[in-house]
Amino acid sequence: KKKNDNTSVGTFVHSTPQTPLQILEDALLGVDTRGKIAFIDKGGELQDLSQTFGFSPSKVIQLEDHEFFMPGMVDTHIHASQYSYAGTALDMPLLQWLNTYTFPVESRFKDLQFAHNVYTQVVKRTLRNGTTTACYFATIHTDSSLLLGRIAHDFGQRALVGKVCMDRNSSYPLVKPVVTPRFAPSCSEALLTQLGAIAKNNNLHIQSHISENTEEVKLVKELFPDSESYTDVYHKSNLLTEKTVMAHGCHLSDKELVLFRETGTSLSHCPNSNFSLCSGVLNVRNVLNHKVKCGLGTDVAGGYSSSMLDAVRKALDASKVLTIQNPEHNTLTFEEVFRLATLGGSQALSLDDHTGNFEVGKDFDALRVNVAAPGGPIDLIQSDRPKNLLEKFLNLGDDRNIMEVFVAGRKVVPFTDL
Amino acid sequence: KKKNDNTSVGTFVHSTPQTPLQILEDALLGVDTRGKIAFIDKGGELQDLSQTFGFSPSKVIQLEDHEFFMPGMVDTHIHASQYSYAGTALDMPLLQWLNTYTFPVESRFKDLQFAHNVYTQVVKRTLRNGTTTACYFATIHTDSSLLLGRIAHDFGQRALVGKVCMDRNSSYPLVKPVVTPRFAPSCSEALLTQLGAIAKNNNLHIQSHISENTEEVKLVKELFPDSESYTDVYHKSNLLTEKTVMAHGCHLSDKELVLFRETGTSLSHCPNSNFSLCSGVLNVRNVLNHKVKCGLGTDVAGGYSSSMLDAVRKALDASKVLTIQNPEHNTLTFEEVFRLATLGGSQALSLDDHTGNFEVGKDFDALRVNVAAPGGPIDLIQSDRPKNLLEKFLNLGDDRNIMEVFVAGRKVVPFTDL
Ligand SMILES: [Zn+2]
Ligand SMILES: [Zn+2]
Repeated sequence: KKKNDNTSVGTFVHSTPQTPLQILEDALLGVDTRGKIAFIDKGGELQDLSQTFGFSPSKVIQLEDHEFFMPGMVDTHIHASQYSYAGTALDMPLLQWLNTYTFPVESRFKDLQFAHNVYTQVVKRTLRNGTTTACYFATIHTDSSLLLGRIAHDFGQRALVGKVCMDRNSSYPLVKPVVTPRFAPSCSEALLTQLGAIAKNNNLHIQSHISENTEEVKLVKELFPDSESYTDVYHKSNLLTEKTVMAHGCHLSDKELVLFRETGTSLSHCPNSNFSLCSGVLNVRNVLNHKVKCGLGTDVAGGYSSSMLDAVRKALDASKVLTIQNPEHNTLTFEEVFRLATLGGSQALSLDDHTGNFEVGKDFDALRVNVAAPGGPIDLIQSDRPKNLLEKFLNLGDDRNIMEVFVAGRKVVPFTDL
Repeated sequence: KKKNDNTSVGTFVHSTPQTPLQILEDALLGVDTRGKIAFIDKGGELQDLSQTFGFSPSKVIQLEDHEFFMPGMVDTHIHASQYSYAGTALDMPLLQWLNTYTFPVESRFKDLQFAHNVYTQVVKRTLRNGTTTACYFATIHTDSSLLLGRIAHDFGQRALVGKVCMDRNSSYPLVKPVVTPRFAPSCSEALLTQLGAIAKNNNLHIQSHISENTEEVKLVKELFPDSESYTDVYHKSNLLTEKTVMAHGCHLSDKELVLFRETGTSLSHCPNSNFSLCSGVLNVRNVLNHKVKCGLGTDVAGGYSSSMLDAVRKALDASKVLTIQNPEHNTLTFEEVFRLATLGGSQALSLDDHTGNFEVGKDFDALRVNVAAPGGPIDLIQSDRPKNLLEKFLNLGDDRNIMEVFVAGRKVVPFTDL
């Protein structure tokens, strides 16, 4: 597919490792034919810039009032197969919930037609909601997992897909396999060790769950009496690497966080799921203080919403709950949570060389947001500053505010016929 | 305006005092010319019913697949004047927040044009989001508060409007004044007592705030050293009545809840606001165990969302947070929270003779919901049962799923030109 080769001028908001929210007004951003950010320049003269960078000033796209570009959002943890019952069945804790709702539905994914329907829905819906990168759990069925990879590819979403064949690489440039032990209680030490070896030999991503609720932590202690901690179970099998992302971690000790940091393992914070299943409240501030990489995940369908905007709101709520419990707690700001949803997610998936913010050389993964989109959910009474516009979008916006979605420079929303 | 005189057949979901969720499938509901529910009948023969109740079978409106009627939602606490900054400015606790954001904006409501713009937005937006009854705080400006009443009337919303002239009744049938001391720290004992007398002499509703955060509770203790508790401050001024609704109450003691019950005072639970301003987490289960009437409020703009669907979700989150803290806590079910948003709200506002569920003789305040609305936020993979459809709507739905809104039998959404 042909990449867009274009230049836009207007407000760009993104994060950097140094600052959670950088606002570039009247900035000019150019995307090359490979979909990569060729330049970003603030405040220069259009005429001069067009000569320096070689584009035609007449073809520059001008953002409207109330519009801005932000990086596409990164969902670091989402069960594509659970999307069919998202928004229901949230009335029991994790271990019962898995047996009652999850396992029976997942078994239906041996049916490729069913898989095709659900996976098409989840890819389209998350793209429309601004998720340009998703780290998917599929099911144990190889064919339908490969199908999920193909659907992500066809719609142009960047994706890691778990439980694809783990000994060959996918041929889709934006889709990669990820080694996916479900979680320690459902894997023998032998399987874990084998998966660790496969990941190592093929330099693959790894994803799993850890320390989601207290019952599960207790169970792991019983099942793995020789391990010092839940984290140690994975560590022993060589599953903690620079390319590992673990979901939840609500009940990790500081010592375990140190091991996360030392191994380069990252955390996917899934606050909707943690509330919905009464699992716990992750202290993200403590995670960040330990310099552990951290992104946000929707964890559909333990989390009922497939929208990363919901994950942003729930991450703020979770942090505020910790402040209610302890006024000394340093609440996350919305700017910091914005970073978790974009740059943080790309770091958590070790994809920050390719995506996560508007750095020159990265792929152009971006949302064109119009906070005042007609028919949309937000009323503006006055012309707000970009920072307020971003905050309104994060708190109140939905897919109606997301006018266009780009992945690697290619416009993937609005959908075109495949 | 002419009321609709119509009969519909399909699924109706609502609450009763005995059961939080009653589902009536293939039911027939008729609305008379005064907008009141004339009959509701499940399972009868259309032909027989049409003779008994005197309507033409050919004019019966048939709900579609994935559709149901539910009662309109009741927002028991919303600051209409703060709508202009909803979704921003949530970075400080209550008392600083009031001084920094709230008071400066509220002072702008002496400008009637500004008031007209904001109040039109908030009435239209809340109607569109399914709020058929709203209990509004306005500002200290009489003219603009009266304007809010007129706008609610013009758009057909049932409303209580606080800080209208308190010694005369409004002439709009669905709009009533409500005596509105802001909260104890901003009122002298003399003013409180005067307001209590006005309410009593005119048999008026009363609304205020109570026990939202711990700093405020401490302040009230200092300002009113002779009162036994925060609740006692209002009680002494005769402000606790069958028609009083108090917002928040996060930090009320059991003894204070007993006083609520004895005086017939109700609570407005505003979970978004309580999270956003780090105020506290109300234990609604404990409130209900004390048999205190309870509804939900958005508390715009301490709460960033004006949608009661958000209040439903956040009320579930708040209850689940209490379960995380104490596994013995009896989590609210979604059915119970649905009741809080509808029947509970009408009870909290002492309007349950007129609205809140589909009882014969009540006004027809209702939402026609289509969970599978084209272009909407919900994907259905299979034909779900009404209970699942309601749960999906509560968790994932938005205004795009609300096809029509009725207040007292009159269709108020989609908007018609005024
Ligand atoms: Zn998960
Ligand atoms: Zn309030």
